[in-house]
Amino acid sequence: MPNPIEFLFDFSSPYSFLASEQIEPLAARHGRTVVFQPILLGAVFKASGSAPLTEQYGPKAGYSVHDFERSARFAGVRYRHPSKFPIGAVTASRAVLWLRQHRPDQASPFVRAVFRAFFQDDRDISDASVVAEIAQSLGIDGPALIEGTQEAAIKDALRKAVEDAIASGVFGAPTIIVDGEMFWGNDRLPQIERWLASGPF
Amino acid sequence: MPNPIEFLFDFSSPYSFLASEQIEPLAARHGRTVVFQPILLGAVFKASGSAPLTEQYGPKAGYSVHDFERSARFAGVRYRHPSKFPIGAVTASRAVLWLRQHRPDQASPFVRAVFRAFFQDDRDISDASVVAEIAQSLGIDGPALIEGTQEAAIKDALRKAVEDAIASGVFGAPTIIVDGEMFWGNDRLPQIERWLASGPF
Repeated sequence: MPNPIEFLFDFSSPYSFLASEQIEPLAARHGRTVVFQPILLGAVFKASGSAPLTEQYGPKAGYSVHDFERSARFAGVRYRHPSKFPIGAVTASRAVLWLRQHRPDQASPFVRAVFRAFFQDDRDISDASVVAEIAQSLGIDGPALIEGTQEAAIKDALRKAVEDAIASGVFGAPTIIVDGEMFWGNDRLPQIERWLASGPF
Repeated sequence: MPNPIEFLFDFSSPYSFLASEQIEPLAARHGRTVVFQPILLGAVFKASGSAPLTEQYGPKAGYSVHDFERSARFAGVRYRHPSKFPIGAVTASRAVLWLRQHRPDQASPFVRAVFRAFFQDDRDISDASVVAEIAQSLGIDGPALIEGTQEAAIKDALRKAVEDAIASGVFGAPTIIVDGEMFWGNDRLPQIERWLASGPF
């Protein structure tokens, strides 16, 4: 079995959302699966001394929102820039890790549903009750999931994932790792496709 | 006549180099020409509070050099990361403006030749004698060109171009403007191609 593609993302990252909508079909075209690994850009940016695009230099922040929207149209993905942005997605991120242990078949659908709730339907995914509702709509026990996000082992797992990402040189999201090769950004999907199709270049 | 595509670049920007190798054929496919407009990222970064990629957070700096090289291979462009990097390219940038006035047919070939000297042949294009040599190899009078870069009007023109770029919201390079629509980065060439082929999206 070839290695799964590791997809490191933050639920508050627009380019992570755009890539998340494309990475699974892309992977499938080349016989690969995707592991969605949440990280927390807040901690990453603290290590790197960076900040969310929308909190950077004014003209760059303004261009970024325009580019999120234009890049979504280019990719054929519906996008509505969230009215509350950026947000912290600790609960939803822990929920992904809990699902990977307890309902592994639901982890990817949950990631997609949370992303869409935030970047298409302007729902406040930093709110645990919203996360529970999204889970429930997928046939997951919402209250059990939220309870799971409070388990020490799950909290530790997310903390460790973020630390490991920083230690291995991750500085932004999405970071997509294919057989050890790291690609940063939604813009790198065409390079990833070539890498999967014909090997390292 | 449709508007020319404005290509704002810094000679010390790897992604500007990669885009410069692709933008003219891309433009020609859609009946457009390209105006190469040098800017100085040093001044832009001073306004924006940013820095060259290779001087940012260590892991990001390291990834960037890897990405310059991989993106060049992806685009089929020969690339050798310069041993002296980044450099200030004031003389070469002024030379482009002088050529646009005095030898307009030579401005584009000169831009391409300077970029290749730096990013393929590891020449120090911050050195005026290197700039003169490159010009000479294109049949341009090298000493006259270097003299031209000292004209007050040429100095003013570059200064004004940089100020205008900053005032209009430019924060990096390449910045490519198509009929007033701004695209930042070599990564946006596919979006530009669609824009030219089928209009705004």
